[in-house]
Amino acid sequence: MRSLIDILDLSVQELDELTDTALDIIARPEKYAHACEGKKLATLFFEPSTRTRLSFEAAMYELGGHVLGFSEAASSSAAKGESVADTAKIVSCYADIIAMRHPRDGAALVAALNASIPVINAGDGGHCHPTQTLADLLTIRREKGRFDHLTIGLCGDLKYGRTVHSLVGAMSRYEGTRFVFISPEELRMPDYVRQAMDRQGIPYTETADLDGAMSQLDILYMTRIQRERFADPAQYERLKNSYVLTPEKMAAAKKDMAVLHPLPRVNEISVAVDADPRAAYFRQALNGKYMRMALILKLLDEAKDPAPQAGLPANAVTGGHQCHNRRCICQTEQELAQVFYPGEGGAVRCVWCDTAAD
Amino acid sequence: MRSLIDILDLSVQELDELTDTALDIIARPEKYAHACEGKKLATLFFEPSTRTRLSFEAAMYELGGHVLGFSEAASSSAAKGESVADTAKIVSCYADIIAMRHPRDGAALVAALNASIPVINAGDGGHCHPTQTLADLLTIRREKGRFDHLTIGLCGDLKYGRTVHSLVGAMSRYEGTRFVFISPEELRMPDYVRQAMDRQGIPYTETADLDGAMSQLDILYMTRIQRERFADPAQYERLKNSYVLTPEKMAAAKKDMAVLHPLPRVNEISVAVDADPRAAYFRQALNGKYMRMALILKLLDEAKDPAPQAGLPANAVTGGHQCHNRRCICQTEQELAQVFYPGEGGAVRCVWCDTAAD
Amino acid sequence: MRSLIDILDLSVQELDELTDTALDIIARPEKYAHACEGKKLATLFFEPSTRTRLSFEAAMYELGGHVLGFSEAASSSAAKGESVADTAKIVSCYADIIAMRHPRDGAALVAALNASIPVINAGDGGHCHPTQTLADLLTIRREKGRFDHLTIGLCGDLKYGRTVHSLVGAMSRYEGTRFVFISPEELRMPDYVRQAMDRQGIPYTETADLDGAMSQLDILYMTRIQRERFADPAQYERLKNSYVLTPEKMAAAKKDMAVLHPLPRVNEISVAVDADPRAAYFRQALNGKYMRMALILKLLDEAKDPAPQAGLPANAVTGGHQCHNRRCICQTEQELAQVFYPGEGGAVRCVWCDTAAD
Repeated sequence: MRSLIDILDLSVQELDELTDTALDIIARPEKYAHACEGKKLATLFFEPSTRTRLSFEAAMYELGGHVLGFSEAASSSAAKGESVADTAKIVSCYADIIAMRHPRDGAALVAALNASIPVINAGDGGHCHPTQTLADLLTIRREKGRFDHLTIGLCGDLKYGRTVHSLVGAMSRYEGTRFVFISPEELRMPDYVRQAMDRQGIPYTETADLDGAMSQLDILYMTRIQRERFADPAQYERLKNSYVLTPEKMAAAKKDMAVLHPLPRVNEISVAVDADPRAAYFRQALNGKYMRMALILKLLDEAKDPAPQAGLPANAVTGGHQCHNRRCICQTEQELAQVFYPGEGGAVRCVWCDTAAD
Repeated sequence: MRSLIDILDLSVQELDELTDTALDIIARPEKYAHACEGKKLATLFFEPSTRTRLSFEAAMYELGGHVLGFSEAASSSAAKGESVADTAKIVSCYADIIAMRHPRDGAALVAALNASIPVINAGDGGHCHPTQTLADLLTIRREKGRFDHLTIGLCGDLKYGRTVHSLVGAMSRYEGTRFVFISPEELRMPDYVRQAMDRQGIPYTETADLDGAMSQLDILYMTRIQRERFADPAQYERLKNSYVLTPEKMAAAKKDMAVLHPLPRVNEISVAVDADPRAAYFRQALNGKYMRMALILKLLDEAKDPAPQAGLPANAVTGGHQCHNRRCICQTEQELAQVFYPGEGGAVRCVWCDTAAD
Repeated sequence: MRSLIDILDLSVQELDELTDTALDIIARPEKYAHACEGKKLATLFFEPSTRTRLSFEAAMYELGGHVLGFSEAASSSAAKGESVADTAKIVSCYADIIAMRHPRDGAALVAALNASIPVINAGDGGHCHPTQTLADLLTIRREKGRFDHLTIGLCGDLKYGRTVHSLVGAMSRYEGTRFVFISPEELRMPDYVRQAMDRQGIPYTETADLDGAMSQLDILYMTRIQRERFADPAQYERLKNSYVLTPEKMAAAKKDMAVLHPLPRVNEISVAVDADPRAAYFRQALNGKYMRMALILKLLDEAKDPAPQAGLPANAVTGGHQCHNRRCICQTEQELAQVFYPGEGGAVRCVWCDTAAD
C-alpha cells in the first residue's frame, strides 16, 4: 500500500504512467466509469479549498465511486480536539482512500502513517500539494507535447508558493529544463531551493521584470500573491498589482507559450487574457481532475498489496533536535515524536515538515 | 444549451411541458430512476438554503445522478476572492449542470454567461428564484387542476418577497387570473409590479385585511416576514404577527382553497393549520423536487445542442449609465462591465439585477 | 413504521437480531451491496459530529444508497428559525430515512412524531445516542463472544456521559452483568441511574480508583471528560488527567479485557495503549458502521408497513406540570406542548427529555 505526500514520492516513470492513464481516461471515459464501483473516497478538508475538493469528488464520481467527508474543520471532530492520527485511523473504517487538506505542514504524513488505507495529500499547510503538480504536469504534456527542453517562467510569489516549489522539483528531473524566476525581491525563490538547483546543475535565472523575461518562455506559470502570507497589509497592497498579466504583456510572448495558474486567481491575470488560446489555466483545472482519477486508480490498485505502508525513512532519528517551524504538525499533534533526517550538506531536517532543525 | 435565470425565460408552453414531465415522474418514477446516470449536479450555495439545496440533491439522486458542491461561502473559494465567473468556468470542468444560490442579484446570470454547462438559478439575492415558482405552479396545477381563472391571494411581505413577484409574473400569463395583494402598508407590492400589471390589464386589488379577503380566494399564498429585511428591529416585532394564518381565519375560506407557502415558515401559519386538508405547503415542497427533476432533465437534454448559451440581450448597451443597487453582482464581481437594457416606458435597467439605473 | 430514539426502544431480542445482521454483513458484504439502491439517507446534523456522520454515510453507501444533508446548523434552515417539526416534514419529501443530531434533548422525538419516514436519533443533546450503544454492543459481542456474565467498568465522566447511561440501561437487561463505576466525586453516576439499578437489583460498586478496580474487569469503557461540561475551566484542568489509561495501568488488567471508548479521545487513553491487542476502540468505530447498516435495513424494512409511527405514550398528559430542563427541545420548539408521563416512584417526567418535572 502507498500514499502520496510529496510529488517526489513518484518516480519519473510513475509520472509518465499517470499521465498516460489520464490521457487514456480522456480518450475513453466509458472504460473507467465503473472502475471504483463500491469504493469510497473520504475528502477530509480541515480548511476549505473548494476547487481541490470538488476536483477530487468529480474524479471519484467519474470512476463510479462514492464520496464522504467534510469541507472545513468546524464540521469535524478536530473541533473536539481529536488528533490527526486518530482521525486517520477512524476514517480508515469508513472509506477506501483519503484525500486530506490540512493547515499544518506534515499533517498528511501523520495521517498516512496511521491510516490503513492510502492517503493523498491535498495540501498540508505551506509544505506540499502534489496533486496540483500532477495537474500542472498533464497540462504541460498536453499543451507542449513533451516534458523536456522547456523554458519555464515562474511568476509572482515564489517565496511561499508551494506549488512552484513542487513544480521546480518535478520538472528539474527532465532533460533540458530551464527556469526563469520572476518575482519582487521580497518574494524571491528561497535559498534552499536555489542551492539545491545549483547542486544539481539545473539552469535558472532570476529577475523582477516580467516583460523582459516574456519572450524566452515556453511556459509561464503565474501565481497568486496571497494576502494571508503578509504580516504587513500595506506591503501586500503595494505588491499585489506588480505582476498582473495583461493582453499587452502577452503580445511579447511566443505564439505557443502556455499560461498556467493553480487558481483561484484574484486579479493577477486580467480576465481579458482568458480569450487568448495560450491561456491554459482553465484546461489545467480540467486536467487536475483527470490526474486525480489516474492517481486514485493507481493507489487503490497498489492497496491490494497486503504490505503495510512505508514508514519513516530508515535514517530517521527520534529526538536530539528541535523543530522550530510553528506551522509544523509536531507543534500540535498529541504524543507525536519529534523525528529528524539528515538533509543535504549535513543539515538536519524535521521528518514531518522538511524544515531545517537545530 | 440553456440556463434558467428567471421564470419568464420559460414560455407558457414550456411550463406546461415541465409540469407534464413532473406529473409523469410522479406516476412512473422507475422510468426516470437512471435518466441521469453518470451525470453530476454541482450545488453551489454561496449562502445556506437547506430546503432548496436538499430538494435539488434529492431530485438528482432520484434521476440516478451524482451531486457535489458546497453549502455556504465559508467552504468555497469565494473566501479567497474568486470571482463568480471563474467559479462557473472551473465547476464546468467538474459537473454537468449547476444549481447556484448567491446573495447578490444577478450572480446567476454572470455564472451562466461563463459556464459551459447549464446553470439553474436557485436564488440570486432578492432578484429571482425560478425553481420556487416551478414548485408553486405544479402545486397550483395539482391542487386546482388548472392554471386559468383563479383568484390568487398573496399575503405578507409583498415588497421584498421575490417568490411572490415571480409568481405574479408567471400566473399573469394565464387567462382569468385575478390577484389580491394582502399586506401592511410598509410591505406593499412595489410600484413597478403594479404598473406592469396595469399596462397588461391584469386585475388586482390591494388590502391590509386578510380576514376580509379570505372568502374570495382560490389560492392563498402566505409569505414570511423576514427579520433581515428590516433596518429597524422594532418595526419587525410590531409587524411579524399581523398576518398569521389560524384555523379561525381558515373558517372563512372556500372549501377547496389551497394554502401555499415557500417555507421555511416561522410563525406566519399556525401549526394547527397543518392538519387542514387545504394546507398544501408541505405537498408544495414535494412538488418542488419533482419540478426540479423535470427541469434538470430538460436542461441536460438541451445541453446536447452544441450551440452556445444565449448571451446578453441584443439591445444591451455597455456603460453610459450607473447601477446603484448595492446588492447587484456588478458591485463586487471583478472586471464585470456595467451593462443596461431599455426597459418599458423608456427606463434603463441593469442587465444583471433588472434594477432601474440612471 | 418505526424510529429509534432511545436504545431501550429495542427489545433484547431485537438487539440480538441486529447484531446477527451486522455479523452477517461482515461475513458477506456483497449480499448487502445493493440492498438500499435508490434509497436516500438524510443526515441532519444540527451540530457537528464527524465520526457519527461519516459512519452513517459509509453505512448507507455500503448498502448502495444515497446520502444528503447538512453537517452543522449554520448550513441549515434552522438559522432562519425553522422548527424541528417542519424540518422533519420537509425532509420526509426528500429522503427515505433520517439520521439526526441535535443539541437539544428530545429533538429526535419531535422529529419522529412529525416525519413520515423513520428517524434515527444520532444524539439529542445530553439525552440519548442509541447508535453509539449499538456500536458498543456489537463490540462486546465480538470481543467477548457473549452479552451475559460480564463485569463492566465505566470510567471518567459518568455524570454527563450519555453513552455510559445508555450502555448501563442496555447491559442491565442481560443476566449476570456487574458494573464498576470509576469516577471522581464530581462526576459520579447520577442518583436516578443508581436508584433504578437498586430497584432492579443490578449489582454495582463505585470507586474513584481506576488502578484498584482494573483486575476484576472484563470490559473497561473509558470516556472523555469534556471541557464543555464544566462551568469552571480550572476544575476541568484539575480533573482531566485523573483517569488517563496507560500501558502501566493495563498491566494489572485481565489478559482478555477489552478497552472501549466512544471516541473521539483527547488524552484519556495514551496513544501507547493503541498497540495493545485489548484496545478495541478503533474496532468499535468499525462496528458502529455495521450496526448502523443493520439498523437502516431494519427500519426501512419496517417502514413498508403502512401503519403510522407510534405516537406519545398512552399514559402521557399534556400540561399541568413544567419542564425546567433548559436544554429540552420544549424550550425552543414553536407551539410544542409540554407533555409528561408518570415515572417510577410517582415522579412526573417530561416526555421529550425524560427529566423530572414539577
